[in-house]
Amino acid sequence: MCAYLRRAELQAWRGVSHDTTQGLKDYFCRPKNTNIRVSLPMVCFVWQIAMIILFGVFIRYNEESDTHWIEHRREENITSDIENDFYFRYPSFQDVHVMIFVGFGFLMTFLKKYSFGAVGFNFLIAAFGIQWALVMQGWFHSLDPADGKIKIGVENLINADFCVAGCLIAYGAVLGKVSPVQLLVMTLFGVTLFAVEEYIILTLIHARDAGGSMVIHTFGAYYGLAISWVLYRPNLYKSQRLQASVYHSDLFAMIGTLFLWMFWPSFNSAITDHGDGQHRAAINTYLALASTVLTTVAISSVFQKGGKLDMVHIQNSTLAGGVAVGTAAEFLLTPYGSLIVGFCCGILSTFGYIYISPFMEKRLKIQDTCGVHNLHAMPGVIGGIVGAITAAAASESTYGREGLINTFDFEGAFKDRTPNIQGGHQAAGMCVAIVFGIGGGAIVGMILRLPIWGDPEDNNCFDDEVYWELPEDEESIPPILEYNNHMSDKNQEMSESNFSVEQS
Amino acid sequence: MCAYLRRAELQAWRGVSHDTTQGLKDYFCRPKNTNIRVSLPMVCFVWQIAMIILFGVFIRYNEESDTHWIEHRREENITSDIENDFYFRYPSFQDVHVMIFVGFGFLMTFLKKYSFGAVGFNFLIAAFGIQWALVMQGWFHSLDPADGKIKIGVENLINADFCVAGCLIAYGAVLGKVSPVQLLVMTLFGVTLFAVEEYIILTLIHARDAGGSMVIHTFGAYYGLAISWVLYRPNLYKSQRLQASVYHSDLFAMIGTLFLWMFWPSFNSAITDHGDGQHRAAINTYLALASTVLTTVAISSVFQKGGKLDMVHIQNSTLAGGVAVGTAAEFLLTPYGSLIVGFCCGILSTFGYIYISPFMEKRLKIQDTCGVHNLHAMPGVIGGIVGAITAAAASESTYGREGLINTFDFEGAFKDRTPNIQGGHQAAGMCVAIVFGIGGGAIVGMILRLPIWGDPEDNNCFDDEVYWELPEDEESIPPILEYNNHMSDKNQEMSESNFSVEQS
Amino acid sequence: MCAYLRRAELQAWRGVSHDTTQGLKDYFCRPKNTNIRVSLPMVCFVWQIAMIILFGVFIRYNEESDTHWIEHRREENITSDIENDFYFRYPSFQDVHVMIFVGFGFLMTFLKKYSFGAVGFNFLIAAFGIQWALVMQGWFHSLDPADGKIKIGVENLINADFCVAGCLIAYGAVLGKVSPVQLLVMTLFGVTLFAVEEYIILTLIHARDAGGSMVIHTFGAYYGLAISWVLYRPNLYKSQRLQASVYHSDLFAMIGTLFLWMFWPSFNSAITDHGDGQHRAAINTYLALASTVLTTVAISSVFQKGGKLDMVHIQNSTLAGGVAVGTAAEFLLTPYGSLIVGFCCGILSTFGYIYISPFMEKRLKIQDTCGVHNLHAMPGVIGGIVGAITAAAASESTYGREGLINTFDFEGAFKDRTPNIQGGHQAAGMCVAIVFGIGGGAIVGMILRLPIWGDPEDNNCFDDEVYWELPEDEESIPPILEYNNHMSDKNQEMSESNFSVEQS
Repeated sequence: MCAYLRRAELQAWRGVSHDTTQGLKDYFCRPKNTNIRVSLPMVCFVWQIAMIILFGVFIRYNEESDTHWIEHRREENITSDIENDFYFRYPSFQDVHVMIFVGFGFLMTFLKKYSFGAVGFNFLIAAFGIQWALVMQGWFHSLDPADGKIKIGVENLINADFCVAGCLIAYGAVLGKVSPVQLLVMTLFGVTLFAVEEYIILTLIHARDAGGSMVIHTFGAYYGLAISWVLYRPNLYKSQRLQASVYHSDLFAMIGTLFLWMFWPSFNSAITDHGDGQHRAAINTYLALASTVLTTVAISSVFQKGGKLDMVHIQNSTLAGGVAVGTAAEFLLTPYGSLIVGFCCGILSTFGYIYISPFMEKRLKIQDTCGVHNLHAMPGVIGGIVGAITAAAASESTYGREGLINTFDFEGAFKDRTPNIQGGHQAAGMCVAIVFGIGGGAIVGMILRLPIWGDPEDNNCFDDEVYWELPEDEESIPPILEYNNHMSDKNQEMSESNFSVEQS
Repeated sequence: MCAYLRRAELQAWRGVSHDTTQGLKDYFCRPKNTNIRVSLPMVCFVWQIAMIILFGVFIRYNEESDTHWIEHRREENITSDIENDFYFRYPSFQDVHVMIFVGFGFLMTFLKKYSFGAVGFNFLIAAFGIQWALVMQGWFHSLDPADGKIKIGVENLINADFCVAGCLIAYGAVLGKVSPVQLLVMTLFGVTLFAVEEYIILTLIHARDAGGSMVIHTFGAYYGLAISWVLYRPNLYKSQRLQASVYHSDLFAMIGTLFLWMFWPSFNSAITDHGDGQHRAAINTYLALASTVLTTVAISSVFQKGGKLDMVHIQNSTLAGGVAVGTAAEFLLTPYGSLIVGFCCGILSTFGYIYISPFMEKRLKIQDTCGVHNLHAMPGVIGGIVGAITAAAASESTYGREGLINTFDFEGAFKDRTPNIQGGHQAAGMCVAIVFGIGGGAIVGMILRLPIWGDPEDNNCFDDEVYWELPEDEESIPPILEYNNHMSDKNQEMSESNFSVEQS
Repeated sequence: MCAYLRRAELQAWRGVSHDTTQGLKDYFCRPKNTNIRVSLPMVCFVWQIAMIILFGVFIRYNEESDTHWIEHRREENITSDIENDFYFRYPSFQDVHVMIFVGFGFLMTFLKKYSFGAVGFNFLIAAFGIQWALVMQGWFHSLDPADGKIKIGVENLINADFCVAGCLIAYGAVLGKVSPVQLLVMTLFGVTLFAVEEYIILTLIHARDAGGSMVIHTFGAYYGLAISWVLYRPNLYKSQRLQASVYHSDLFAMIGTLFLWMFWPSFNSAITDHGDGQHRAAINTYLALASTVLTTVAISSVFQKGGKLDMVHIQNSTLAGGVAVGTAAEFLLTPYGSLIVGFCCGILSTFGYIYISPFMEKRLKIQDTCGVHNLHAMPGVIGGIVGAITAAAASESTYGREGLINTFDFEGAFKDRTPNIQGGHQAAGMCVAIVFGIGGGAIVGMILRLPIWGDPEDNNCFDDEVYWELPEDEESIPPILEYNNHMSDKNQEMSESNFSVEQS
């Protein structure tokens, strides 16, 4: 029936079309079952209203963002407003915020015709995710037993951004192959799983993971890869013409790469201990990232004819070092230790793009659009291992008694824990992250296979035309037919008619 | 006479031209009465010299940026340099600075052939405006009675950026239809009006407006709309071919959108009270913006065929929430209150782009290029109202005695003012902003109608060719004719001749 | 022989090619002797491994980034973690970091076909340079005599970024004419020379240079110009077709310009004295940059037909003011003094682009791709002179006794130095910077002339094709031939064959 319709349309189109390629394009790109005019607005409204209700019931300001801060200061004998946590965290928060929205958003604009979807849907799911994350993480970490409310401050905002980062990493694996509705569903479950996983790893297991090598990157990457595996598209080659970049789209992607690269020290230090903790985490990350760049360039060059560099590697593998020092950045990893971690990750990640990704696609049936396995999964696992080793190797002689306690938070129920034991628990946390990522992703993938989400057909993946009103290209149409996409249709007709009058 | 000349030229051109379209383009785009070779440099020099004189007479460093800070610290018993206002404000200042130059600049690059004008003229008028703002605002707010000098510090820089923001909003309404000289005149008067209006609202009426919903956005938007109304162009449809975007220009605009969106919490918290004030303002803005994104996407999708999203909405309406919490961000708006404000503004602003803008253009004869009415005017007014309500609803029970006094600055002459009364004064401030915007804009619009400013004709609006030396497009000309726009003409001739020699 | 080969190839190509222009392009752009498949990876690996060894032997955390910070705090009676230098410097550091990687990187993307090289190689050499700079500068400034280790903190990271800035300025002079290997060699020597020159100027001569007008800009620019002079290419006109911009490449360059412009106040204040020093340096830079914009626009307009603006001037000359207040920014330059400096530099720098650069190219045989002589060399020298005058004019009456001592660091061996004497030493520092730049550049230029570095031929300079795998342009080839640059070749063949089957 549908096929019949299509044939009819094809004939109709044959009859009228003047521009074959244009016509063909129209024909193939028609959003056949991709109409999200009902589902997308509905999901957005329902979830935003739910957020308002949840925030009304649960979310309040904490004592540092509340007007009672003045009394709080007096009680605590805090000498100055500058000791409000806001001034310790806010600059790092803004850097992280840039990484989430510009960094991840533009990093994914490399595809020639999916830049709107990359930056636009990234914007959408991040904006939803941070709200849901404030609630989910709040229940586990910021619930005030006195009145059962979640008290939020700048640190919660940073954690919400972190939580969303996991979902954006997952988006990288399915980029161009899912609908915005699927992305919102994916984010809803992703944030939920993240909050639980994070609670288990950081609170129950009491592993340390300042930069989230395990909690954010490993979980996020495997979550996305598992979903991509469940949603495998055998005929994706039909969209292959669009699964490539153009000169300027690669430049837009470099904007994302550089903002991620530059602000990663803030990412890894944003929620570490005041004072030396933040200071050290920033230094370690800065160094790891620097050495990653050189090994990435080296491997990219050595594996290509004439030693030419591949933009895909420069855009992605140069960031692997930041992922891999996420856990250990706040420990005494030492400056050269950071360089070594970055050194290895640059090599491994670039290898991944050259050999592992194609292998995964052909043999494991995992289509990983942005290669998150090379940028987040492998470096994340390495980061977890490095963290475990560094923790196990810690000692009072190097850290100092107080330093050791502060760095690993050996207090309260954990005051008897030794570095060796901590190392083991770090490794345990690693496993939890992987299990949650793969398990959760597989289940969510099943849900996303339901035929109700309006995802694109195999022959128009990676195409903004499916979900976006695209501007006409200047070349493709004569000026007279061009319309002003900033005015209403009526308005156009009017002025166009005037215009033709003008001409005659 | 002019007509005659043109005919002659037309014939001349007919005779020689080999490339008709190119020739036609040259002909229509020739800056006929748009030569600003005298006026632009003159205005720039005169005003910059005037600034130098005014700064020489009036502007000095304040005690926190002066070398006497050390004595000042001792007198005030300030324990550490970290309590210098620089460390409370500078990170927020830099974020605001990015919003002014990259945020506003790139947000306006969406037009296919006016990106240079968008980012370039934004740069020019902002750079002039901040200097004039330092003087104007200084007279009202930072004049030291002791020596009659204006003492400036980082807070003055932030306020200068704020002041300029009003003029850049106004620029959005007339984008592509005015000359840089007109923009400089518009900025001169805009900053002056802003400083007076701000003084009346914040000092005389003693309304609070941390994020400038009233002072910046409402004033700026109505100022621009009134100017655009006075400068109405009935034949603007002649430039319609250029009043549209292309794929990559929309991506450049997203750079502006995202930097505005991300840094808006800094914008609204930049000059609020140290400690909880800045902390709370950032949180409220962060939340309002997040919920705006979802409702913007929902409305954009529901009103288009197939539920496709329109980039215009994503680029602009997603920011409405930040505008609307500008006034109330420092109050106890509560987290869910912020979400509700963002929720409503996303809907309203997107509706504006779909229905109100076309209506304004056709019926009210207001041509609003960037739709500032939807992004700044309406949300700004809502922000003023929300601020008035929130202020009126304040009480000692919720704010705490000291908190109430600090938040609303109920001190000195205003120590007897109650929240209810404050609410009324907030509303009064709102009206002052609107009156100054519309009234000032109408008068300045009259001045800008004088035929001396070199503004473009109706058929070459939105075209960079009028005021910029544009690079040749690779396609349009053979390599041999291409010239190096980084060398002098002589140099070219030389090397080109060499080149042809080479060829023969 | 080579000529013979080429003729043979030319005939071969004539035989098979269907697309003449494409074929010609292929022919001319073939990386003949530009294969860096061995040299680039080798250099990257050798140097990165050397860095790891050097860091292992020398680099440690300082007492503010070490876990012993807690004891340190107690000993020093520091009341709060917020007084850790991290919170004084980190926001400025991140701004500087953005200038180095996004600012310099994108500023150089203006060329139509060299944007990958601009942003990519900038990334590579900066990432290498900061590591080498930490070691070199550490030996001179941060060596702990107690244990012979270099103790690093956030201030070292800032200084490393500063050091690299010098080499990136030099890159601007040779942009598009050298290979990445040459750039790495250039950076190795550049950082070394920088560290020595900096030690002589700041420590031995005890000149002050907070923003590096002399140490960074003057040295860097003359270093690059000297290299470019030694590497003069008489037949560069053969690449002239590529030494121009296109519309969007100019917009990408504006991203670089604006981030440099906005964050320059952080650059000049990043390592100045806590408190008033940083505060004042930021204000002076902010003002100088603002006035530069107006005079740049004025001169750009007055020298062009119809008063049209040239993007090259807006992209570059608007930054000259920031360079020129680098030295004096921390002194009592006064706000109007800053405006005057910016005023003059905008004029001079734009003049430079219009007249001096072509002159240098034709008469002095110095090919300066980005015009660093106009943006860094001249303004840098002016900055040195302004610094000397401002220092000489200092007095206790204006600075206050303590202020004078703090600002000029008249302590220890220099406690008897007077402002006049300081002025002389500032001038001496200026000369050292110029000598090191020209002398060092000439020598390094000789080394770079060796025929082993794989630099491009005169006819394919400014072309990314030489060192980068470029994406195919959609227009140039039919979809069927387009390949997916995110998959392995095998994979392609498979799916392409499938695809053709699909077609038949």
